[in-house]
Amino acid sequence: MLTLFHGWRSSASRRVRLCLAEKGLAFESRTVDLTKMEHHKPEFLKLNPNGVIPLLILDDGRSLYESGTICEYLDETHPDPPLRPDDPYQRALMRNWIRHVDERIINLIVFNWAHSMAKVAQQWSDAELAEKLKSVPSKERREAWIRAARKPYTEEERGEARAKLVQMLDRMEDMLKPAGWLVGGRYSIADIAVVPFIKRIDEEIAPDQVTAAKHPRVFAWWTAIQARPAFAVAKIGSFTDS
Amino acid sequence: MLTLFHGWRSSASRRVRLCLAEKGLAFESRTVDLTKMEHHKPEFLKLNPNGVIPLLILDDGRSLYESGTICEYLDETHPDPPLRPDDPYQRALMRNWIRHVDERIINLIVFNWAHSMAKVAQQWSDAELAEKLKSVPSKERREAWIRAARKPYTEEERGEARAKLVQMLDRMEDMLKPAGWLVGGRYSIADIAVVPFIKRIDEEIAPDQVTAAKHPRVFAWWTAIQARPAFAVAKIGSFTDS
Repeated sequence: MLTLFHGWRSSASRRVRLCLAEKGLAFESRTVDLTKMEHHKPEFLKLNPNGVIPLLILDDGRSLYESGTICEYLDETHPDPPLRPDDPYQRALMRNWIRHVDERIINLIVFNWAHSMAKVAQQWSDAELAEKLKSVPSKERREAWIRAARKPYTEEERGEARAKLVQMLDRMEDMLKPAGWLVGGRYSIADIAVVPFIKRIDEEIAPDQVTAAKHPRVFAWWTAIQARPAFAVAKIGSFTDS
Repeated sequence: MLTLFHGWRSSASRRVRLCLAEKGLAFESRTVDLTKMEHHKPEFLKLNPNGVIPLLILDDGRSLYESGTICEYLDETHPDPPLRPDDPYQRALMRNWIRHVDERIINLIVFNWAHSMAKVAQQWSDAELAEKLKSVPSKERREAWIRAARKPYTEEERGEARAKLVQMLDRMEDMLKPAGWLVGGRYSIADIAVVPFIKRIDEEIAPDQVTAAKHPRVFAWWTAIQARPAFAVAKIGSFTDS
């Protein structure tokens, strides 16, 4: 059986859970509490020296990290139902779209970390914060923790991040024109990759933009996504009720 | 015939040329002068709105950008000789390694842009610099241009970047242990991805580290890479003689 180390609210984890659900694959769920920095603790680093979730442990004990890579691996090893386009050019577009979305994760962090991450981090003393930052491997994530703990993002910064996310909706609106799906004329990992973004834009960041009036194709796509049985199985819940 | 928009010194372009050479694929060469910011000009943005090279134009006029994506596309459409592992797990490791290398490109920019990019940028007036920065889409690249034009990287910053690149050599040394290639037991896009880095580390950044004494497996790998006929065809020349 597969084992997944993940977080219920982690965007990358949500992608992998959705992919597993579409494939009908069961897994042993091992949650990692990011507010307790469990992903930077020695026990977890032994499994994944990069200190990131999700981490998928295969039947034979080998492991894989990086959500886009995991989803493509799952599709290669469990091809039914297919979650990648058959055409190599469309597969290339799928990979570039996943990368495009990945590169915009900071705009989501600005909003997402203002919830439980900030609430916990704001309680730390300066000494505790300094100690915890030592275990965070990337500069970008250290900065995000400092912002969560001490310098909440300003309204201007939130506005800029929101604008970037709305640009993604504009781009999706164009991409959805031919067939209602992002690439290759059918539902694929390209769609799955952006689901955690749209969920958050729709529930908190810019709900007025995920509407039939503003982005009609995105709205129809999002309605279709949420109606899929896998969406319920993947438990992509709300950030705001807790 | 394929058309490639590229730069002779651009690391991402070097990857794609190497991949094309391994496949024995001819292409029409269209160089893009980064020092003249040709990649941010309207003529080029019409071909690639993202304003990056390399850009591959296919026979039917469709285009592809992003070196890792282009290389994988070329391998899917021209499978002989294969440049990806047959095993899905090893292919996943290949994709994660390419991403790992991509995320470290800033450490190469610190050294690479000190050559022709800086020489040109230092001549610009403040007004010219401000005007040119307007066309650079990413914050990271705007910062790199400002550094090239006005604030050369300090010795300390160069030291930090060098250390990060030497860490890559350490990691490669581990990965090369089983078979002398980075993933899957044979030469692949994982190896191609890091060639532009090793070329620059060996010629300028830390030549004492690409040696039989310091990193014997990397040294043997690099010797084998340079002996491949495709390496000569791809014209991965020196930065320092100009």
